[in-house]
Amino acid sequence: MIKISIIGSGNVAQHLITAFKESSTIQLVQVYARHRETITHLLPTKKIINTLAELTKVDLYIIAIHDDAISTLSDTLPFTNRFVVHTSGSLSVDYLNNKNRRGVFYPVQTFTKNKTIDFKTVPLCLESEHEADYILLKKVAQSISDSIYSISSKQRKSLHIAAIFVNNFVNNLYQIGNEICVNNDVPFAILKPLIMETANKIMSLSPIKAQTGPAIRKDQQTINTHLSFLENELYKDIYKKITESIQTNHDKEL
Amino acid sequence: MIKISIIGSGNVAQHLITAFKESSTIQLVQVYARHRETITHLLPTKKIINTLAELTKVDLYIIAIHDDAISTLSDTLPFTNRFVVHTSGSLSVDYLNNKNRRGVFYPVQTFTKNKTIDFKTVPLCLESEHEADYILLKKVAQSISDSIYSISSKQRKSLHIAAIFVNNFVNNLYQIGNEICVNNDVPFAILKPLIMETANKIMSLSPIKAQTGPAIRKDQQTINTHLSFLENELYKDIYKKITESIQTNHDKEL
Repeated sequence: MIKISIIGSGNVAQHLITAFKESSTIQLVQVYARHRETITHLLPTKKIINTLAELTKVDLYIIAIHDDAISTLSDTLPFTNRFVVHTSGSLSVDYLNNKNRRGVFYPVQTFTKNKTIDFKTVPLCLESEHEADYILLKKVAQSISDSIYSISSKQRKSLHIAAIFVNNFVNNLYQIGNEICVNNDVPFAILKPLIMETANKIMSLSPIKAQTGPAIRKDQQTINTHLSFLENELYKDIYKKITESIQTNHDKEL
Repeated sequence: MIKISIIGSGNVAQHLITAFKESSTIQLVQVYARHRETITHLLPTKKIINTLAELTKVDLYIIAIHDDAISTLSDTLPFTNRFVVHTSGSLSVDYLNNKNRRGVFYPVQTFTKNKTIDFKTVPLCLESEHEADYILLKKVAQSISDSIYSISSKQRKSLHIAAIFVNNFVNNLYQIGNEICVNNDVPFAILKPLIMETANKIMSLSPIKAQTGPAIRKDQQTINTHLSFLENELYKDIYKKITESIQTNHDKEL
């Protein structure tokens, strides 16, 4: 059995706790939570600690806390030369104090509280400074997911920015669509199957091949109609910029 | 049995043909195709015509062709006072010649050639000038879909613009994400579960509640890092505008 402990009790930490509890090859020894009650529904209280000094020796410590707090917390760990990883998409492995052996365990998914996720399908991007640590990290990852990638800090930075576009920014476009519907007395539910199919389409087709609409058809008349319909200047700008982006990409393809 | 004929042989027409073929209450009498061979895999040749003069009398004619051609085609129809609808999201019912009784039958979905869609889940937005025609149109719609909406031309215009945001524009963000991955030697496949979950999340949560990321956290340091990473000026602009949109919407909510 590989022994691990998790530091953190937020959204990512809770999903990891749930996933590791079901693993037969991993023993989840302790979880550090500033407020123990946040995770008492997930673990027996004897496994929950609220000071770092209580951390016992394990094979791997997973720090799953806010980006801002990772560096300070890793400085404060009361041990050296053990294997410590963080779960952040945006921070380099160097953010961890080098008194310990360092790595990254980045689950590429958006986690919602109280919404279960099939962890087997969550891609895990792994990185470590030492080969032997990587082998252990990979075993830990494989115990909960079928989708494992070796990704450097440099690659991860670009991946995280790409994730902002396809997740955070896409969600804002959903929000704009929702707002247009609400303001015009149209049920947003009408768009939901379209939203699912738009995502589903690129599971098997490249986004550039899946592109449709007035922008790619260079249907300037429809584009102008839409621009004069939109009253919000910011939405108008977004409409123009993305239309330009669709047309530029299309031209590159030709 | 309600008798219908379809005018058109493109993507939307083909998906409609497939759906109506399986309906037990609708008789698909004829399909007009400029090039008959485009749909011979779907229908017996005796049902396929290639001149409008061959159209026999039915209860409903569905024009499923490019927006640009709808008006001219409806002028050319060799009959009057019959019930004729188009399938366009962006055009008012007035685009049809008023020598016939007019309506709209707009399926809100993105159709891909050779990719089957469960038509039962496709929302159909209906409109007609006359009450009696609406009743017939609704019966036709219910024979292939469980999701029927009465939507006026004015509502449909806003719905179509909202659809551009959540479909065409979202796809372009997928494309930008893909490009960032490819340029940095990261498999785009890593982002696919995130893309599906981002869409899936708003099936049960409003987009404004589902929003996460550095923009809504007002994490200016991360935003600046991302902006200096992006070399493409257009993508930088899109990043800035959508970040502003996320923050503005969030402030409105407070």
